Amino acid sequence: FRTSSNGCEYRERVLTMDTMNPNVKRVEYAVRGPIVQRAVQIERELKMGIKKPFTEVIRANIGDCHAMGQKPITFFRQVLALCSYPDLLEDGKFPEDAKSRARRILQACGGGSLGAYSTSQGIEMIRQDIARYIERRDGGITCDPDNIYLSTGASDAIVTMLKLLVSGEGMSRTGVMISIPQYPLYSATLAELGAVQISYYLDEDNCWSLDISELRRALQEAKKHCSPRALCIINPGNPTGQVQSRQCIEGVIRFAAAEKLFLMADEVYQDNVYADGCKFHSFKKVLFEMGLEYSEKVELASFHSTSKCYMGECGFRGGYMEVVNLDPEVKVQLTKLVSVRLCPPVPGQALLDVVVNPPQPDEPSYDTFIKERTDTLATLAEKANMTQEILNQVPGIKCNPVQGAMYTFPRIHLPPKAILEAKLLGLKEQTPDMFYCMKLLEETGICLVPGSGFGQRDGTYHFRMTILPPKEKLKIVLAKIKEFHQHFMAQYS
Amino acid sequence: FRTSSNGCEYRERVLTMDTMNPNVKRVEYAVRGPIVQRAVQIERELKMGIKKPFTEVIRANIGDCHAMGQKPITFFRQVLALCSYPDLLEDGKFPEDAKSRARRILQACGGGSLGAYSTSQGIEMIRQDIARYIERRDGGITCDPDNIYLSTGASDAIVTMLKLLVSGEGMSRTGVMISIPQYPLYSATLAELGAVQISYYLDEDNCWSLDISELRRALQEAKKHCSPRALCIINPGNPTGQVQSRQCIEGVIRFAAAEKLFLMADEVYQDNVYADGCKFHSFKKVLFEMGLEYSEKVELASFHSTSKCYMGECGFRGGYMEVVNLDPEVKVQLTKLVSVRLCPPVPGQALLDVVVNPPQPDEPSYDTFIKERTDTLATLAEKANMTQEILNQVPGIKCNPVQGAMYTFPRIHLPPKAILEAKLLGLKEQTPDMFYCMKLLEETGICLVPGSGFGQRDGTYHFRMTILPPKEKLKIVLAKIKEFHQHFMAQYS
Ligand SMILES: Cc1ncc(COP(=O)(O)O)c(C=O)c1O
Ligand SMILES: Cc1ncc(COP(=O)(O)O)c(C=O)c1O
Repeated sequence: FRTSSNGCEYRERVLTMDTMNPNVKRVEYAVRGPIVQRAVQIERELKMGIKKPFTEVIRANIGDCHAMGQKPITFFRQVLALCSYPDLLEDGKFPEDAKSRARRILQACGGGSLGAYSTSQGIEMIRQDIARYIERRDGGITCDPDNIYLSTGASDAIVTMLKLLVSGEGMSRTGVMISIPQYPLYSATLAELGAVQISYYLDEDNCWSLDISELRRALQEAKKHCSPRALCIINPGNPTGQVQSRQCIEGVIRFAAAEKLFLMADEVYQDNVYADGCKFHSFKKVLFEMGLEYSEKVELASFHSTSKCYMGECGFRGGYMEVVNLDPEVKVQLTKLVSVRLCPPVPGQALLDVVVNPPQPDEPSYDTFIKERTDTLATLAEKANMTQEILNQVPGIKCNPVQGAMYTFPRIHLPPKAILEAKLLGLKEQTPDMFYCMKLLEETGICLVPGSGFGQRDGTYHFRMTILPPKEKLKIVLAKIKEFHQHFMAQYS
Repeated sequence: FRTSSNGCEYRERVLTMDTMNPNVKRVEYAVRGPIVQRAVQIERELKMGIKKPFTEVIRANIGDCHAMGQKPITFFRQVLALCSYPDLLEDGKFPEDAKSRARRILQACGGGSLGAYSTSQGIEMIRQDIARYIERRDGGITCDPDNIYLSTGASDAIVTMLKLLVSGEGMSRTGVMISIPQYPLYSATLAELGAVQISYYLDEDNCWSLDISELRRALQEAKKHCSPRALCIINPGNPTGQVQSRQCIEGVIRFAAAEKLFLMADEVYQDNVYADGCKFHSFKKVLFEMGLEYSEKVELASFHSTSKCYMGECGFRGGYMEVVNLDPEVKVQLTKLVSVRLCPPVPGQALLDVVVNPPQPDEPSYDTFIKERTDTLATLAEKANMTQEILNQVPGIKCNPVQGAMYTFPRIHLPPKAILEAKLLGLKEQTPDMFYCMKLLEETGICLVPGSGFGQRDGTYHFRMTILPPKEKLKIVLAKIKEFHQHFMAQYS
């Protein structure tokens, strides 16, 4: 026991900020940072009857589809209910295709129960189904189920892959290239692992496209102080909403091959492509179409998830990665490593199985499934368009087209006075765009994430907003942002 | 591209055994190690029609209840089905208490869907329910829902806690005390984190009890080369099946307080207590009953899971930890850290909610629930007893009573000739008990884990076997082990 400076006794703990893992301190994760914490407080205040200039908090901070009212696909949920409570298999109300999927999944589970651990890599039958799905997606390029690893959301697989890649000290410490702006899972994981983050900037003036010369610049600079080993790409992009062209992907692959970089392709938004002329190209497919020189050489891990696309099933934490050209010995190590945590959640695995093996044209649930999927994707496309249109009408806000994914990352012009005031408030986290977003939250109840949470070029400011609120609500959100921004500009100019 | 020693071309990869994270190489995880891999192969061989002296592989290697035929609790599965497919809420076939639980859970989910991410710490209402459950368990000692963190199985929470605790280099590197034998999640995680494992031996001659003087010995020795910061206890024990006495737990707490160690209490088997005179005492309860000197001082994290007890719902990966006396600043860091992976699987959270909030005496599902729970626990108790009785009849096998959990860890006498042969086979992993278990697998189809996978005193040999096979099958397994052991002894003496 010691006496602290303010006079009260406290005891010295074992685990304190001083003794704690220093890498954990360095981790930042803005998507659930101070703005979101304040949003939670405000919700409590509203409940307690405290008056605000708004009646509800609208969360446009996180890609959480169902939370924003997107409806789950009926067929998927029927299969999950049947798997959870197999007595329902005797129930006449469920369609036969849902029942047969559920029976097949249960047969592949230990003891016929979702409650059994699976093999650590994921249920073999489901890995086979995923492999067939990837082959269909990629026009027949083969996929080996042994290269599929199921995971607890894509997050888990991404962390595992980064973990394998990190080694060395000082100059030979692993460097990993990530885009700026980026999804902060990457920077947070690199901080936790003590790896070196190598930032390459996406080209805001060209729809956030990826410029190979910028990759080269970032790599050359990084080589002076670390050992670059991997290159991460998010396509379609979060937070930036771009869809990379085939030509760009080819360039990235050539770059990775020449520079001996392990490729990590985060493709969780692969069905979320809205803009005319844009198409999703998987890294795997492009790699294999570039010929043996690449397809036998470049090491690739690509990631997918049940959380996004038209499913939006975030809570189930279904996900997988496919590894290509992974050293067989390393693969043994990877399998060992994932076995320590036993297995990914089995309901998420079951969900993934129906995602990759949905109703077929001759099956009773087909029409409903297609209708639901089409509607969801069409609504997202509409909202993507509406978002960019309305925001671009606001003087001082400029946003690129939302070609894909679920976000817009508009650039906001902040007057010098506002920047000054943010600095005067002086808290470490009070970047000018944090100041802006916090004010927006307090005045309108709209919860966004400041651009600084994702990274941006010095002196530029952005926010990330999801396109997920229901159409009518999204309209209101956009109108409120417009009004707020105009007011803000007037106040600080 | 280079030419390897055997003449074929191979290309140099980015990620190889040489460049990989060296800590990953050090990870060992025997529960899913070579024996299990061979078991999978044998299953395939049997399917292909290859003749063996047996017709099926019996897995007694992992505590996977449903896989071994244990039935899920009906009520839990009904609630999960209702949550997965809420249309069923209109179905007259489901009992009202299941429906009201499901409605309540869905109301606490974003958008009323299991498919939404939850807050990273876990759904608030569920944390409140857990807190009430802990209070009932601990005779009214208060539990703050803010101290509960839901997780992806207990494994996830254990890893997170260890991650926070690890820091320093050389002499000041964090050391963590774990029992030997132990559940290999601990040693594997310490290896991955590069922490120092401090082994303390359980007392085989005294029913695997924990001896404070052995803790002291291990700690004194460790202080010479690292900075001991945490002490892990598994109670009831895996793999050793002991239930620690209240007196022992008090001794551990006093030791932790005196030596400034952070306590980690793995209590996932808290309902699995079978032996007369044994009772589960939670570390939290004992700590608080020892008075302010301890209850305001000792830092504790305790872990629970849906995977064990009478539920055995391993596949859902539900789990939680309660932290006590955690430094408030460190708690903020913990919350930030878990937010990087977004949230634990929501179906697992829902399941946890019904586990802590089961049917009450005035509710329609109560009788069935109590019957199912009682039957499952009674069957486990019977099997615990049967296992120890039959094994102790075999000359050269000696096992302690299975007081709790789901395992026996008998000591096996191996003749010098057998030890010699194992050594001559010479593979790194061919410890004599691995040799024994592999032979057992090949000759009988029974899959156990060698004691070396959990740690044991030098020169002693054990295997771990679960008591989970159905009673009739367990009898056969035990008879076959008996026969095998006698044959083995004859062959090598
Ligand atoms: C680019 C990207 N990758 C990965 C993830 C992780 O998703 P999950 O872990 O839910 O699969 C997200 C989630 O928003 C994401 O945006
Ligand atoms: C002692 C102990 N702790 C933790 C776990 C992890 O269980 P889960 O992650 O499934 O909750 C196990 C599983 O067997 C165990 O035996």
